[in-house]
Amino acid sequence: MNLFQSDYQEGADEKVLKALLDTNGLQTPGYGVDTITEETKALIRTLCEAPEADVHFFVGGTQANLTVIAAALRPFEGVISSDLGHINTHETGAVEATGHKVLALPSGQGKITAEQIQAAYDAHVNDVTHEHIVRPAMVYLSHPTELGTLYTRTELDAIYAATQACGLKLFVDGARLAYGLAAEPDVDLPYLAGICDAFTIGGTKCGALFGEAVVLKNAADWPHFRYHIKQRGALLAKGRLLAVQLRALLEDDHYTSLGRMANHKAQEIKQALLKKGYSMLADTKANQIFPVLPNIALKTLETDFTFAFWEAVDSAHTAVRICVGVTTPDENIEALLHAVEAL
Amino acid sequence: MNLFQSDYQEGADEKVLKALLDTNGLQTPGYGVDTITEETKALIRTLCEAPEADVHFFVGGTQANLTVIAAALRPFEGVISSDLGHINTHETGAVEATGHKVLALPSGQGKITAEQIQAAYDAHVNDVTHEHIVRPAMVYLSHPTELGTLYTRTELDAIYAATQACGLKLFVDGARLAYGLAAEPDVDLPYLAGICDAFTIGGTKCGALFGEAVVLKNAADWPHFRYHIKQRGALLAKGRLLAVQLRALLEDDHYTSLGRMANHKAQEIKQALLKKGYSMLADTKANQIFPVLPNIALKTLETDFTFAFWEAVDSAHTAVRICVGVTTPDENIEALLHAVEAL
Amino acid sequence: MNLFQSDYQEGADEKVLKALLDTNGLQTPGYGVDTITEETKALIRTLCEAPEADVHFFVGGTQANLTVIAAALRPFEGVISSDLGHINTHETGAVEATGHKVLALPSGQGKITAEQIQAAYDAHVNDVTHEHIVRPAMVYLSHPTELGTLYTRTELDAIYAATQACGLKLFVDGARLAYGLAAEPDVDLPYLAGICDAFTIGGTKCGALFGEAVVLKNAADWPHFRYHIKQRGALLAKGRLLAVQLRALLEDDHYTSLGRMANHKAQEIKQALLKKGYSMLADTKANQIFPVLPNIALKTLETDFTFAFWEAVDSAHTAVRICVGVTTPDENIEALLHAVEAL
Amino acid sequence: MNLFQSDYQEGADEKVLKALLDTNGLQTPGYGVDTITEETKALIRTLCEAPEADVHFFVGGTQANLTVIAAALRPFEGVISSDLGHINTHETGAVEATGHKVLALPSGQGKITAEQIQAAYDAHVNDVTHEHIVRPAMVYLSHPTELGTLYTRTELDAIYAATQACGLKLFVDGARLAYGLAAEPDVDLPYLAGICDAFTIGGTKCGALFGEAVVLKNAADWPHFRYHIKQRGALLAKGRLLAVQLRALLEDDHYTSLGRMANHKAQEIKQALLKKGYSMLADTKANQIFPVLPNIALKTLETDFTFAFWEAVDSAHTAVRICVGVTTPDENIEALLHAVEAL
Repeated sequence: MNLFQSDYQEGADEKVLKALLDTNGLQTPGYGVDTITEETKALIRTLCEAPEADVHFFVGGTQANLTVIAAALRPFEGVISSDLGHINTHETGAVEATGHKVLALPSGQGKITAEQIQAAYDAHVNDVTHEHIVRPAMVYLSHPTELGTLYTRTELDAIYAATQACGLKLFVDGARLAYGLAAEPDVDLPYLAGICDAFTIGGTKCGALFGEAVVLKNAADWPHFRYHIKQRGALLAKGRLLAVQLRALLEDDHYTSLGRMANHKAQEIKQALLKKGYSMLADTKANQIFPVLPNIALKTLETDFTFAFWEAVDSAHTAVRICVGVTTPDENIEALLHAVEAL
Repeated sequence: MNLFQSDYQEGADEKVLKALLDTNGLQTPGYGVDTITEETKALIRTLCEAPEADVHFFVGGTQANLTVIAAALRPFEGVISSDLGHINTHETGAVEATGHKVLALPSGQGKITAEQIQAAYDAHVNDVTHEHIVRPAMVYLSHPTELGTLYTRTELDAIYAATQACGLKLFVDGARLAYGLAAEPDVDLPYLAGICDAFTIGGTKCGALFGEAVVLKNAADWPHFRYHIKQRGALLAKGRLLAVQLRALLEDDHYTSLGRMANHKAQEIKQALLKKGYSMLADTKANQIFPVLPNIALKTLETDFTFAFWEAVDSAHTAVRICVGVTTPDENIEALLHAVEAL
Repeated sequence: MNLFQSDYQEGADEKVLKALLDTNGLQTPGYGVDTITEETKALIRTLCEAPEADVHFFVGGTQANLTVIAAALRPFEGVISSDLGHINTHETGAVEATGHKVLALPSGQGKITAEQIQAAYDAHVNDVTHEHIVRPAMVYLSHPTELGTLYTRTELDAIYAATQACGLKLFVDGARLAYGLAAEPDVDLPYLAGICDAFTIGGTKCGALFGEAVVLKNAADWPHFRYHIKQRGALLAKGRLLAVQLRALLEDDHYTSLGRMANHKAQEIKQALLKKGYSMLADTKANQIFPVLPNIALKTLETDFTFAFWEAVDSAHTAVRICVGVTTPDENIEALLHAVEAL
Repeated sequence: MNLFQSDYQEGADEKVLKALLDTNGLQTPGYGVDTITEETKALIRTLCEAPEADVHFFVGGTQANLTVIAAALRPFEGVISSDLGHINTHETGAVEATGHKVLALPSGQGKITAEQIQAAYDAHVNDVTHEHIVRPAMVYLSHPTELGTLYTRTELDAIYAATQACGLKLFVDGARLAYGLAAEPDVDLPYLAGICDAFTIGGTKCGALFGEAVVLKNAADWPHFRYHIKQRGALLAKGRLLAVQLRALLEDDHYTSLGRMANHKAQEIKQALLKKGYSMLADTKANQIFPVLPNIALKTLETDFTFAFWEAVDSAHTAVRICVGVTTPDENIEALLHAVEAL
């Protein structure tokens, strides 16, 4: 069976694996206070052109999201998100478990707009009973989004302006950032580091065994951040493992290269499906595609391939998610292209 | 510099690393619903002689502790622990962050007794104002303890009887269980699985890159446990990585063998120090030793070796922790033995 | 100025006040373990025809809601509510602060339906990734709703059937229950006690200085409930004050009588407004009305009367809430009727 | 039966009750934004000589404590308290339920010292693993303490200096402040307002039906505080009821006068017991006394009087708490004095 339902079906990219092997015997202090970690933080600051930034490493995305959000908010504050946002739909209420409401806004193709954010903020402050209502204090975006779409620089400029006008923090979840950087080069690391109070550079879905880097724009705004990490159970004992992997990915622009290759292959599959006359639920340029397939065709494909069910479009059609990850074997992709051809 | 301050200074045992390499290219579903994970769970159930048990894997110990405890308790309930217990001292209030009080009992050499547990429970229920007081509902032990000591089977029998009499759940933190199994063979996996509602088999400090197995005595008592794991940010995307490592450790009793070797080396160092006339803060048989050293001798050793500061015993003496882990290089141990000799 | 924006603008009904005075000098144990409290609980059990029920008293509604919900749910579970539900909109995230997500459903006129509840539950259990999603475990309704509307017995029968089919708990917030009982007599106390796992009988908005009774259908399903109350800061030291007031209200059906009078007056105002040609945002039979007024008319009325702003219907019209409470002075109502007449 | 186990066995002081009656018919906006509340806040600011202070009203002490503490701390921070502190022993883990650890220090007679606070802070910051440990950020004291004892101005000066040196907030729980102000006049309202970031002026145990005023030294340090109150379920709908009562108590120094009378009577009982040769567990000057009684004498007294069990001193002696509140009937006190005489 060839698995296409997500981009975390295999282990790690070869370069990442080699880095883990090469450093295995080294002795370092635990909990991320070693020199590899320090060097990798410095590398990320350099890549982000953000000398004032703080960088921390987490094993996974939910962990990173809940820790950053809980660290940023006061008890009565909430975080604005697309209704499709990962924190609103697929983290089993992890943010609420830290005491905070997710303030969901309806989204077109996974994205929310500056206008929606401004309107939500205005609605709050203009309500005379606002002390009885959760106060919006942060905006959470995913880039790419859960629907594989990407924010443009223009959209992000407007969102940034809105958050500045409203005094809201901006947090971008980059779990799939390798694919985003490759598909939307205008939204690069220095740009994100300039507009985001916090953002993540995802490793798990982009070639690492696991690991996300969290970039905090101004270290001074996030005092004592390691206490938060430890309290949430997110301080890895052998902390350098995270840095080793992220360094292997980010050096020499390997990260974006990996994303570019995967995007390319995903788009090949998309073209093959479009050629067959199937439509897409969302218009994506990166590594996730969302074809709407006749149930019969889907059934045929599912004898050899797995996809993620997305939604029943009508009684005869189903939308699925097809992911190509940086470690998806080439032969699987070839096989899928042939199978689509043969439909 | 040779690092002895803890047992998580290197990467993984060779067998673990090989298993990760061998499985790297495999495609599996994410989040621990793959066959490697299922097989490893079955292996652990077999080793524990506990067919009714549920098994789950976590990246780290704090994560495992907070998830198990929060899953076990109702909001007004607390967990009894030694005052030196990891959850009480070194997890930045992770348990409290889930809403629960740690009910600390004074401990001799890191251990608490059945009598203390019974007395704490009785004090609660006999207090007419008990509805104003956190209700004890679980007992947390570490084995080995934070002071490297071990519970005997007789002590654990009594603790188990007390928890049964009081209706308390019993949870044993086995972050260093490899060393415990080797040093106190009476307390083996089937025994622990018989008395504990939950216990952990630690990987991180026992030869894995990371990973702890949580064994839940009766699966039926812990419904929907994977929701808890996900909510706490502890459901690893590439979940099989945990199973791969734990399997490599637990197959063919490799785990206990590794523990035995490390214990042996730690005890060699202890003997060398005792021979020099230094006393130990605690009487340990496993991989951690706690010598009380003259500050001058300590200073000499610290030119080449790092230890964990434990406490200032008096103005001229300091207790330190020396750990030997399963991956501590032999040459480091030799060097330390020579350095002790030369004091 | 005559205040009509809510039903908690004055002190208490005369009967309630007299009961407080009459019992002021009595000595009783604190924290609600006195005989007045016991008698009032018995009275409520009798009125509800629910001998197995447990009854507790709270100072306020948010306190009661958060305590009941947090006591009912396990950490990963959430509570279904109308998007207009008080817990979703006007309690500053009190439920989330206990760690639980409010699962909001769109509502027509403040109400949700059995079909919506069933669909939400089905969507959860049928999603293969449901372990990544907050699990619905309770349904929260308000009766009357935040829009002043009422559930019929038929609607509640269907909702009850759905919750039973799905294994969901049912919780009805009766902050304004006096008005509900008077306007919809089919939905009486025994009926509510039969279908609800928990419901409240509101005092604060129905003639008490403060106080809500929480009725728990089966005491055995809510063990140690007083611990929850104390932990949330909701156990009143002079606990009998709550019982004294609720008893004064509930004896001799005074409660429903008060509600009936207020409903009658609110409906008089509604008729006067309808007669003037103004429409209502929602069709209400109880003590809250939601007229859509031309801004000019509103401005005129606001020289002497206060209402609660509800929403801007269009650039020339505004919907407001007008409440008549059991203690609203008759002369205020007369004045408002005259003012409407004169528009 | 004459109840002496606590100081909340009756209703309210006559003056308080009259104030409630006199204002019952008034219409005011809800939730404490009325003019009575504003005037009472101004009165308290004046009495505290603290024009920059913010004042809020709560129904009860646990509610006030948990709200103030949760508002003051960041997630990884804890609050230092005497091990006998109300938040550590008698609030069912209310502080932990907001996510924060209570850092208990051993106490002599209910009090902790500046030296202990400084040492606890130093131990934290000097520990190289402090990021793994809950960070102390606030000190909680009770005055009078749970053992009825009082801090002297000298002790408080030292504690204040320590908190300033360590950057810790200082919070004083004045649930029984009327008795404290009367017994230790040096520690008056302006003094407390000068040293405390927050303190409470207790009403419930000092003549009100219920109610505590929270004084926050600098309003600017506690932004959006009403959101916190609402979120914790502590914003009373008919908020003016709290202000009405506190105003009645605080006007014309009625509060301290009430405390003085009760202290005087409690001390009369103490003298009678001392005269009989019984010792006291703690040396108290205010309204609580803690005699150590032979069990036989206790049994005799308990036919007509109730006390709070405190501890079994030895097999033949028991320490109990006897409280005199501002509303304890004179005849009860006379009866107790006679009964002691007759022992």
